[in-house]
Amino acid sequence: MRNPARWAATLGLTATAVCGPLTGAAHATGPAPTALYAPSALVLTVGHGETAAAAAPERAVTLDCATRPTGTHPAPLAACAELRAADGDLDALDARAGVLCTREYNPVVVTVDGVWQGQRVSYERTFANECVRISHGALFTF
Amino acid sequence: MRNPARWAATLGLTATAVCGPLTGAAHATGPAPTALYAPSALVLTVGHGETAAAAAPERAVTLDCATRPTGTHPAPLAACAELRAADGDLDALDARAGVLCTREYNPVVVTVDGVWQGQRVSYERTFANECVRISHGALFTF
Repeated sequence: MRNPARWAATLGLTATAVCGPLTGAAHATGPAPTALYAPSALVLTVGHGETAAAAAPERAVTLDCATRPTGTHPAPLAACAELRAADGDLDALDARAGVLCTREYNPVVVTVDGVWQGQRVSYERTFANECVRISHGALFTF
Repeated sequence: MRNPARWAATLGLTATAVCGPLTGAAHATGPAPTALYAPSALVLTVGHGETAAAAAPERAVTLDCATRPTGTHPAPLAACAELRAADGDLDALDARAGVLCTREYNPVVVTVDGVWQGQRVSYERTFANECVRISHGALFTF
């Protein structure tokens, strides 16, 4: 939080995550990971508000998908499967068909930070209410 | 005890005793977390380079310190203990006394992202080489 360069990097990565999900792995930078498995370790938070900057994290869970799915996330297996199916593109995780939610506006914001398949992730997504959040699948349900 | 003034004084002191400690959380920003334990979930990465923006994450581990220390970090118990002792101030984690490292400059950068005691964390620290990194304690040794 104290390093302006770090903030700039985070903002840059966020911009990449938001604006460039369709480019696949083309935005990889720097040397390739050397481990047998590319690291995939994430921390997810949820809080009430429109942006992460304005919302205190009410819950925070970890999720590791590098080998055996694990973490304090309540459903690591399903969450990692969703991420793999979406090739790490968090914006591609859409609402499940057949789930009905009210139109109440009581926004909740989810953040996902860490590494997916060796690429840094800094992601934030706001849902209109808790029902809408949970309707978006296992990853966002914690 | 039958004196109303005495009763009032007793009640006042009891209220102070019960409510007083809560003011210790005065440095929290935004709405207070609602969970019984303030969330403390982190993801740590390490890569070769001077900045996280320039260094691909070669390893990434999770660490959850909210209740029982857990995660893919190799020493969750010691890592959480260090964080608690430093009150979450990552810059306060200093090199252990008596560890000697070469002056070789082959920088490694560690990032720590997530939540500590309900507060968001986005931290980056560069060490001159691997030996210097590991000399800084259990948290940075993964």
